[in-house]
Amino acid sequence: MLYSPPVTQEHIIAVDLGGTNIRAALFSTRQPGILKRESVKTEAQRGVEAVLDLICRTIQAVMPDDRASVRAVGIGAPSPVDPFRGIVVRAPNLPGWINVPAGEMLEQRLQMPVRLGNDANLAALAEWKFGAGQGCNDLIYLTISTGIGGGIISGGRLIVGAHGLAGEPGHFTVVADGPPCGCGGKGHLETVASGTAIARRARELLPGLPSASLIRKLSGDDPARVTAKLVSEAAAQGDDQARSLYDEAGTYIGRAVADMLSMLNPEVIILGGGVARAGDLLLEPVRQAAKRFAMAPSYTDPLRIVRAQMVDDAGLFGAFVLASEEA
Amino acid sequence: MLYSPPVTQEHIIAVDLGGTNIRAALFSTRQPGILKRESVKTEAQRGVEAVLDLICRTIQAVMPDDRASVRAVGIGAPSPVDPFRGIVVRAPNLPGWINVPAGEMLEQRLQMPVRLGNDANLAALAEWKFGAGQGCNDLIYLTISTGIGGGIISGGRLIVGAHGLAGEPGHFTVVADGPPCGCGGKGHLETVASGTAIARRARELLPGLPSASLIRKLSGDDPARVTAKLVSEAAAQGDDQARSLYDEAGTYIGRAVADMLSMLNPEVIILGGGVARAGDLLLEPVRQAAKRFAMAPSYTDPLRIVRAQMVDDAGLFGAFVLASEEA
Repeated sequence: MLYSPPVTQEHIIAVDLGGTNIRAALFSTRQPGILKRESVKTEAQRGVEAVLDLICRTIQAVMPDDRASVRAVGIGAPSPVDPFRGIVVRAPNLPGWINVPAGEMLEQRLQMPVRLGNDANLAALAEWKFGAGQGCNDLIYLTISTGIGGGIISGGRLIVGAHGLAGEPGHFTVVADGPPCGCGGKGHLETVASGTAIARRARELLPGLPSASLIRKLSGDDPARVTAKLVSEAAAQGDDQARSLYDEAGTYIGRAVADMLSMLNPEVIILGGGVARAGDLLLEPVRQAAKRFAMAPSYTDPLRIVRAQMVDDAGLFGAFVLASEEA
Repeated sequence: MLYSPPVTQEHIIAVDLGGTNIRAALFSTRQPGILKRESVKTEAQRGVEAVLDLICRTIQAVMPDDRASVRAVGIGAPSPVDPFRGIVVRAPNLPGWINVPAGEMLEQRLQMPVRLGNDANLAALAEWKFGAGQGCNDLIYLTISTGIGGGIISGGRLIVGAHGLAGEPGHFTVVADGPPCGCGGKGHLETVASGTAIARRARELLPGLPSASLIRKLSGDDPARVTAKLVSEAAAQGDDQARSLYDEAGTYIGRAVADMLSMLNPEVIILGGGVARAGDLLLEPVRQAAKRFAMAPSYTDPLRIVRAQMVDDAGLFGAFVLASEEA
């Protein structure tokens, strides 16, 4: 990066770059909370330069009067990121964003230090410093959504790996020769345990479900209306079949969690993303499977498996943590 | 720990506590290599106190004239270890060694700082600083032997986890409801890919093998003489069945490696332990399976999968690294 941050300044600007919105927030390093925020539509179809301009405009909207008081800008991107070189590797929801050196491009435009991170990694940082992982130095965050992503804090540091690609638990192989994965692999965790997978399994079952099935009723027998959320509502109202789909997904997640325990021995596993809003419907089978597949009770007895606490602002708080770290 | 090391001193004593031998070596922090070494039989059956006495005696044998020049003692134990409290959790080959606070007990006896580590973790440190991982900040070491152990270096630090139990890749679940594992689990990596597993599979096949089979010939048709090493010799001499057993083991290891890549994105995977002496017979299927199961070429293209370079002295060099680290 071009600029190394002076230590006397006191503001951080955090940006959450999403496929739909770009959000920016002004933080102080001396008091908790967001001082000012702004959100604009991403207009991703206009291409890389236009989105970079929008990012800068959103940042300007939260800029403090004393520009020199901004120590750094932290940005979360919906993509694998090379944090060492500030490169957005490939953002599926942002057309044209393939190997974009966004860090350097934004530093040139903004004339301030910019640090880039993967959005799920930043959510892990947010949970660590402000959410369900406070006080822990070893945690794994999983986001269960249309796909499955994650972030690892080990020994009080974000694990990024040699090229910034660490923390992708969604691509653990859990079913040899299982369903095809978006990445080209087979039987990866997200093919059997993501929201997409839960909805797909429910749609597969739909034609054979009894007429009393709540999945049938709530969806009006329309496969297009079957979502993981609908399945969780059916389960909450007592539908056994719906519950068993969450059991199945949670068991796969718990088994992958057991593998992660033997590698990283964390004290807490944090489940975020839309599917984890189902709460214990998902978390209880995760806990049981983690126990069943783990090597020894010494891994699972002191372990907590809990829901994420940061919801809408995880990306912003995570970008704030990223940009405030001296490392 | 009781004593914090002064920084002007220049010696480190490294100890490799094994089920058979206790080995100690004197290192200088200012020049590479072992200055002096000693080895004694462990006499494990005599119990914890006797072994602690033997450790102290072995250390005394390599003690420099100026005792005050010893900055710290590093000890590798064949057990999970709580490195924060210096506790040997459970050493299967050392009767009575269950939750032994060896760090503190040895500090009291020796009146010098003692740091304790798991032997496979220390082998990872040795490979990192002196072996196949030199210059890398992100590596995973696997020891393929009667069981499968390991150690992780990420971002230039040994990953120990919340309670020191990290780095146990042998207990990844790779076959749901597979063979029983020593830990009580099922289908863990070491049940299908360790030396023990390779020998077991060969013994299962033995009665049905053709009379030309080298496994039959080399073992004299005696199941008790079938070992992983014998199978590798048969493979080296062209026996297809023997080769396929290494293929099978290597494929399981490669699949688990792919999971590790998505979590930790290392630049090098180092395979040590007796079974890895088979070289490419084992490593080639590991490489192929890692590619096949990994999420993307960006994980495997820059990755090296290589044999360990440190052989007999990995434990001593690793204990030296452990005790020299300022962390």
